[in-house]
Amino acid sequence: MDSLSSAREVKIACVQFDPQIGQKAANVDNSIELIKEAAAKGAHIVVLPELCNSGYVFESRAEAFALAEAVPQGQTSQAWIKVAQELGITLIAGIAERDSNVLYNSAVVIGPEGYIGTFRKVHLWDSENLYFEPGNLGFPIFNTPYGRIGVAICYDIWFPETFRTQALNGADLVCVPTNWVPIPGQAQDKDAMATILAMAAAHTNSIFIACADRVGTERKQPFIGQSVIVSCTGWPIAGPASADRSEIIYADIDLGQARRARNWNTFNQVLRDRRPDMYHGALEGGGPTSRSS
Amino acid sequence: MDSLSSAREVKIACVQFDPQIGQKAANVDNSIELIKEAAAKGAHIVVLPELCNSGYVFESRAEAFALAEAVPQGQTSQAWIKVAQELGITLIAGIAERDSNVLYNSAVVIGPEGYIGTFRKVHLWDSENLYFEPGNLGFPIFNTPYGRIGVAICYDIWFPETFRTQALNGADLVCVPTNWVPIPGQAQDKDAMATILAMAAAHTNSIFIACADRVGTERKQPFIGQSVIVSCTGWPIAGPASADRSEIIYADIDLGQARRARNWNTFNQVLRDRRPDMYHGALEGGGPTSRSS
Repeated sequence: MDSLSSAREVKIACVQFDPQIGQKAANVDNSIELIKEAAAKGAHIVVLPELCNSGYVFESRAEAFALAEAVPQGQTSQAWIKVAQELGITLIAGIAERDSNVLYNSAVVIGPEGYIGTFRKVHLWDSENLYFEPGNLGFPIFNTPYGRIGVAICYDIWFPETFRTQALNGADLVCVPTNWVPIPGQAQDKDAMATILAMAAAHTNSIFIACADRVGTERKQPFIGQSVIVSCTGWPIAGPASADRSEIIYADIDLGQARRARNWNTFNQVLRDRRPDMYHGALEGGGPTSRSS
Repeated sequence: MDSLSSAREVKIACVQFDPQIGQKAANVDNSIELIKEAAAKGAHIVVLPELCNSGYVFESRAEAFALAEAVPQGQTSQAWIKVAQELGITLIAGIAERDSNVLYNSAVVIGPEGYIGTFRKVHLWDSENLYFEPGNLGFPIFNTPYGRIGVAICYDIWFPETFRTQALNGADLVCVPTNWVPIPGQAQDKDAMATILAMAAAHTNSIFIACADRVGTERKQPFIGQSVIVSCTGWPIAGPASADRSEIIYADIDLGQARRARNWNTFNQVLRDRRPDMYHGALEGGGPTSRSS
């Protein structure tokens, strides 16, 4: 019998707001007010943006270093653990992590009983490469009161491997703290390509995806908002949110649907239909083009 | 120097029409008229739908067997080779292939100088599993006068592995002969999810994707049309076409752009940024969920 067939519906909230670079105490206070607002509306799972305690556009590694904290021992994690316990919610939030003298662009996963685990961004974007180390924990699946959750941060979703790895390892929901920026040369007057990526990944893996983006402009870098929650069918069920306003989007989901919906007909289940023998190992290494051009 | 930097622009055409089950001679005649129409409009590369010589909804394996042909020795391939040579075009066309007593859902790739190669559909959909064998040739890259082309057929595009494997092996354009059907439980009043999949794959691999779908209803099975050509940025540049009319869509593309556009900034090139070490082998095998649910 499907272990999730008796799962009750879960309300998930993606909090879109505008953290200020360097204003950590204010950012955390702001995030806690928004978490409380989401919980008051009935949210069981709350997702916050990438690096939402520190801000994103660092001027130096020293600035990033000064803002980063141990997870979960640091002040930010402890404040989030306290509020999650008080409210009985599950929280996924982007945080600048310091592990000894090494920095990671991380997300902390917290449940009603406290700290559950940490995800470290695997694929670093642009100048993040100057401040952070690439994540070294893979794509762990976190068991929570509401089911099995994976986490990806921003550029991680440009890699279909991210979602495929998580789905194969049992995720029914992937939460995405993000700080999406405009892509040079891309049409900005249309829906964000990030929404398209989330839709395709949700559909082809039969997983729910919840993306919490930030808004605002930081040291001349604009962010594009448009937080979105996508059903396991691939269609958005909340958002995309606005491109420039702080807001919270909500969706009621049945995580068990993700697993049931993978059986499309008598012959096809999308994860079982994969044919690694036909991919000729290209996915585990790099092809000639990836190395030479 | 980029080997494609001097590539001239190429006009690609996707031919959307309504093959009739079992009417092979008429289907091939029809396809040749449409190929001539596309070439007269200046097309260099022409893509035809899946199984467009035989039709799609077989009643028995014997019916499929009787309609299938050796590739490229059979009548259909020979007729297409003749017209491609006459017109000086490159043609990618879906065909029911018979190899000894084994059947494949294939596409033949033909250039101005004749037969180039064959692709056999890797991921079979629904009752195709009753008639065809899964493709056993992987995802070969075909060198053509206009650049490096991969082929995928219909359900193959539900697997991001398809496009990733092709991009890693050097494809700049993937041609998709297809017979898209409505997906149970999916919103049919919106854009086809298939378009979303093509957009996400084009963007995340920086490749062009050209999908030629069929229209019409065959033995009660409707097809959804909406043929589309997607730029390497991920945005459609021709179509989606109508859901129910025979028509040809065209786009002028510069295949070299696919490779140049992969370099997004000082630090990031999407194919090089993959981190197979963090995917923990999940992509080469199957995870627990894929085996058990």
